[in-house]
Amino acid sequence: MQRHAAVMGAAGALGTTMMKTLRARGWRVVGIDSKQVVDGLRRPPVGMEAGVMWNVVVPTNGSNPSEQKKHVLGEMKLMGFGNEEGQKKLDAVLCFNGGFAMGNASCDDLLVSVEKMYGSILVPSFLGASLAATFMRPGSLFLLSGALAGGNVPTPRILAYGSAKAAVHHLVRSLSHETSGLPDGTKVIGIAPDILDTETNRVSMPNTPRDNWTPLGDLANKVCDWAESPQMCTSGTIYKVITSPSGTTYDAL
Amino acid sequence: MQRHAAVMGAAGALGTTMMKTLRARGWRVVGIDSKQVVDGLRRPPVGMEAGVMWNVVVPTNGSNPSEQKKHVLGEMKLMGFGNEEGQKKLDAVLCFNGGFAMGNASCDDLLVSVEKMYGSILVPSFLGASLAATFMRPGSLFLLSGALAGGNVPTPRILAYGSAKAAVHHLVRSLSHETSGLPDGTKVIGIAPDILDTETNRVSMPNTPRDNWTPLGDLANKVCDWAESPQMCTSGTIYKVITSPSGTTYDAL
Repeated sequence: MQRHAAVMGAAGALGTTMMKTLRARGWRVVGIDSKQVVDGLRRPPVGMEAGVMWNVVVPTNGSNPSEQKKHVLGEMKLMGFGNEEGQKKLDAVLCFNGGFAMGNASCDDLLVSVEKMYGSILVPSFLGASLAATFMRPGSLFLLSGALAGGNVPTPRILAYGSAKAAVHHLVRSLSHETSGLPDGTKVIGIAPDILDTETNRVSMPNTPRDNWTPLGDLANKVCDWAESPQMCTSGTIYKVITSPSGTTYDAL
Repeated sequence: MQRHAAVMGAAGALGTTMMKTLRARGWRVVGIDSKQVVDGLRRPPVGMEAGVMWNVVVPTNGSNPSEQKKHVLGEMKLMGFGNEEGQKKLDAVLCFNGGFAMGNASCDDLLVSVEKMYGSILVPSFLGASLAATFMRPGSLFLLSGALAGGNVPTPRILAYGSAKAAVHHLVRSLSHETSGLPDGTKVIGIAPDILDTETNRVSMPNTPRDNWTPLGDLANKVCDWAESPQMCTSGTIYKVITSPSGTTYDAL
């Protein structure tokens, strides 16, 4: 069976690695991002072979969340996705949308941070839920990106980010219930990484030991394992992604 | 000592009752809402007597969250509030901003709900935190409105509302830490009511028994008690507001 995945935040570091990993393992992948995905195509030509990336660019400037949803769903339909007989279905929807903002209550730009975290974390997570509800095959995987700072751990100096991630954790737990509107048997999980080994983190923390940084390929392979065998996941769970010199573990938060 | 409070969501049912209760107990009150507060004045005349309501109208149409903050802080300064010697300070900031939206992942207007809950729950809560950080006297009360559906309880059919309330609960817990940017000794609490006895609820649930509906005056008096004696609260706590025929209780969630 040819598997199809939608990756949101596809232009980011983890999203890019996820796209490559899925392609290498034979998936067809639609990359969704506000930025053009590297070597992605806007729409697939007819008869496209397995493993090639397709690309949906989400219009964020001046476009409200409903318009973004309409655009993304419309593009998916143009690619032949749908829930009717003979139409393509998604076997995984994976949201790696990011964004970060420091700031406590006395920061002048607290509300700027709130708006940024809304646009880069909350809206894409709900957009992913709409995508999963509309196009996913029953029994597939829906994954959202949570955080270690945002669950039960207070974040007094990163208020907007922590609160947005708490909202995402709540969404994971809520979507795992059968009345959530997702296809029957969908497994809904979150990941809560510590520090990912990205180029950006290497530049911003040049002198920090990297023993406990998670290699993007490790995480992407694990997510691909889950997507290929959703029964390995417990729906409603946020998985802590913790790396040590002996490897990376994925335990429930 | 003349006490001053800022009430956000002042034009709503609970906000209106809170304003009246505070006035009756000798407080000066600034009502903040996107709607004009009934019998409120835009700005106080010089030498205004105790107990009169002042009013700040938050511009929401076409104004982003940062502009809203700038407007509200500017109006407060025009009224003489500030943290310098001789300037007025707030002894309580109370956020009763509301809003509600049903909807699971398969709803067409999920993203519309997300945007509404962002504007009516998240932005005002963070705006309240900025107000508290800028104008509150050390050792005062900052109160946010949480919900029973939005803490640890999943909300599969009210996704946007539940997630926004989970973000508010996270904010309460984070703001109670000393590095959160609020004045020293601020008590930060949330309230999580069940059903409030409002006109709107009476109209929408005409045949529901009201034994367990919380009278607005009961809750407003309790909040006023907390505001007058913040040492009665445990900072970082969400208080469940549960009413039975024998009265209303306020236990930690």
